[in-house]
Amino acid sequence: MSRLITLTTDFGLSDPFVGIMKGVIFGIAPKATLIDLTHDIEPQNIQQGALVLSSAAPYFPRKTIHLAVVDPGVGTSRHPIVVETPEAIFVGPDNGLLSPAFSNNATTYQLTQSEYFLESFSNTFHGRDIFAPVAAHIATGVWPSRMGKKLDEPIVLDLPRPEQNKTCLRGQVIYADHFGNLTTNISEDDLKQCLPSKPLVLKVGRRTLKQISRSYADCSKGKAGFLLNSWNAIEIFVRDGNAQQQLKIKPGTQVTLQSS
Amino acid sequence: MSRLITLTTDFGLSDPFVGIMKGVIFGIAPKATLIDLTHDIEPQNIQQGALVLSSAAPYFPRKTIHLAVVDPGVGTSRHPIVVETPEAIFVGPDNGLLSPAFSNNATTYQLTQSEYFLESFSNTFHGRDIFAPVAAHIATGVWPSRMGKKLDEPIVLDLPRPEQNKTCLRGQVIYADHFGNLTTNISEDDLKQCLPSKPLVLKVGRRTLKQISRSYADCSKGKAGFLLNSWNAIEIFVRDGNAQQQLKIKPGTQVTLQSS
Amino acid sequence: MSRLITLTTDFGLSDPFVGIMKGVIFGIAPKATLIDLTHDIEPQNIQQGALVLSSAAPYFPRKTIHLAVVDPGVGTSRHPIVVETPEAIFVGPDNGLLSPAFSNNATTYQLTQSEYFLESFSNTFHGRDIFAPVAAHIATGVWPSRMGKKLDEPIVLDLPRPEQNKTCLRGQVIYADHFGNLTTNISEDDLKQCLPSKPLVLKVGRRTLKQISRSYADCSKGKAGFLLNSWNAIEIFVRDGNAQQQLKIKPGTQVTLQSS
Repeated sequence: MSRLITLTTDFGLSDPFVGIMKGVIFGIAPKATLIDLTHDIEPQNIQQGALVLSSAAPYFPRKTIHLAVVDPGVGTSRHPIVVETPEAIFVGPDNGLLSPAFSNNATTYQLTQSEYFLESFSNTFHGRDIFAPVAAHIATGVWPSRMGKKLDEPIVLDLPRPEQNKTCLRGQVIYADHFGNLTTNISEDDLKQCLPSKPLVLKVGRRTLKQISRSYADCSKGKAGFLLNSWNAIEIFVRDGNAQQQLKIKPGTQVTLQSS
Repeated sequence: MSRLITLTTDFGLSDPFVGIMKGVIFGIAPKATLIDLTHDIEPQNIQQGALVLSSAAPYFPRKTIHLAVVDPGVGTSRHPIVVETPEAIFVGPDNGLLSPAFSNNATTYQLTQSEYFLESFSNTFHGRDIFAPVAAHIATGVWPSRMGKKLDEPIVLDLPRPEQNKTCLRGQVIYADHFGNLTTNISEDDLKQCLPSKPLVLKVGRRTLKQISRSYADCSKGKAGFLLNSWNAIEIFVRDGNAQQQLKIKPGTQVTLQSS
Repeated sequence: MSRLITLTTDFGLSDPFVGIMKGVIFGIAPKATLIDLTHDIEPQNIQQGALVLSSAAPYFPRKTIHLAVVDPGVGTSRHPIVVETPEAIFVGPDNGLLSPAFSNNATTYQLTQSEYFLESFSNTFHGRDIFAPVAAHIATGVWPSRMGKKLDEPIVLDLPRPEQNKTCLRGQVIYADHFGNLTTNISEDDLKQCLPSKPLVLKVGRRTLKQISRSYADCSKGKAGFLLNSWNAIEIFVRDGNAQQQLKIKPGTQVTLQSS
């Protein structure tokens, strides 16, 4: 059976690194189907990689294998791991990159069985030498539990949470996409719980945006607005424009949401 | 049977958007084969997307499904559509993006049957919620005619046409590629009809280029020239250089072709 | 049987060129599996393409077909070729691009049998018209020897070799990757042969780097170091940084390695 493997890295696409990982995978699992999530994670930006992976994983079929490498600690004592959940398998370094993608109902194994690695391995490219062959062996049917011993406390990424009080939600921009749209860490659930009664006002920097939009086209061209986006999170946008550039906002900027 | 689906968007490759669409497709059509045309269409540039799609589609096997999303009107009343031709299937928004790729011999259906969409859908990401699942269902064998009712007059993109008189053809640059080569809207057919006798001279800005080349190597290094390119259109180039940058020409610039 | 075809070009991913090549391939070899090595080779940089291809090819299964197009001489008298080795097949222009990927034990054929090309072909896009269909026909089982007559002396790329004397190795940076890491042409073998006794010192510009690292993490953050990288070559890096930008070094810069 063809098994899906997704790839998420900060390797870029201009070098042969990603292609080499795919060559290694097909050498072991010729029937695998490979899908690139992205290879344009900012170098060593674990949080960005974690957000991309966790937002995409739910849209893949059950038992998809998600291989992710954003790995500033390659060659150190940080563990390579595989995580098994009822929905999917995750393979990558134990540095928090995988953690937002799985809930509590997950089992983590430290990758210690070197018969599932390439024969000789480097200290600089575990994507090729460890993670790709491990993902490929899993695709051929090897159980994650055979890859090594259980790891009780994998590193969990400390994603910023919004603060809330009776009148407002204070969060931050956590992701800027290709269009310059700015996703915040304020979710639809946060909103329902804390600010159930509309209308809403969003404050960012010196700017106040009035009234949540239903779609981008609710704003006139070139105007800034905010809406619940496809990740069910509050997003700041500029209609037919680039909010990141035009509003000069980037991940980390504080955002306040309150009733008007 | 494995069915080909191509993808053309302005989503870029740095976010998980394209990967998510592929996850949705494989969840419905596990045997589909996916090919990226490009995801680097300039944000909201419908004409650029239309040119890329229409130039590539003829090179794909019959019955290929072409999924394209450049969709500034997402979440508004613009229709999502599927277009069936004797050669291929096109899925995307009804904003002209698909129109240059199909001739008159095509049937368009408005996508209204929501059983072919994702269960809950957003106002910001129809690529994931409507177009990807529809393309996938077609790949599994669902007829486009079951997706909704016929749409008699889909929006047709108004591509600029060259003007011609007895002595010259006046057109414009419509596309700049990765190498900086500049494709015009003057085709080989226009040339045969209007300027059958060579030699030719091309005027762009204050510059006059003499004599059509057969290949790039007909010019000496660093020199500008023009030829009939692989799209059967007049193209301006700089040998081993970047015409867009060196000649400071971009899409929209007027070009005149005449007998010398 | 599904046959692997890799693609390496300088076409970029923003135009439909790569997608068109894939459409042509699937039209001939519907069961092929395609893998992009990279399409971001610097325009017309044959050496960069050759390094990427030769570093990746060994990681692919036997009989993989490697299609590569960096082709400033397209449309001239340069030959299109196919190279058969015991491990793999290479298809591309005869300009040195393929040569570092195969050893002496290879047979080269000039592509002359036009029944394996597209019916009408251009002088500007042999990737589409010659190389893609030839690779696809090979994937369906056509022997390379049927594609044309033997070519005894294909062009061999003249890659710079390090100079060595009793006390030092003088080489150069030959490749800068996405992270800004700088690969030199000094290999592990050169090192063993010429400088078997450590400790080592590397000199580049006015800078002296002391002591070879085992992994990136051996240096403190922001500091420059050097190590044997995943290509078994000496590489200059900045821990969690970009050596190319911070040290202002690029391919061609001279590097000296000596005992300290």
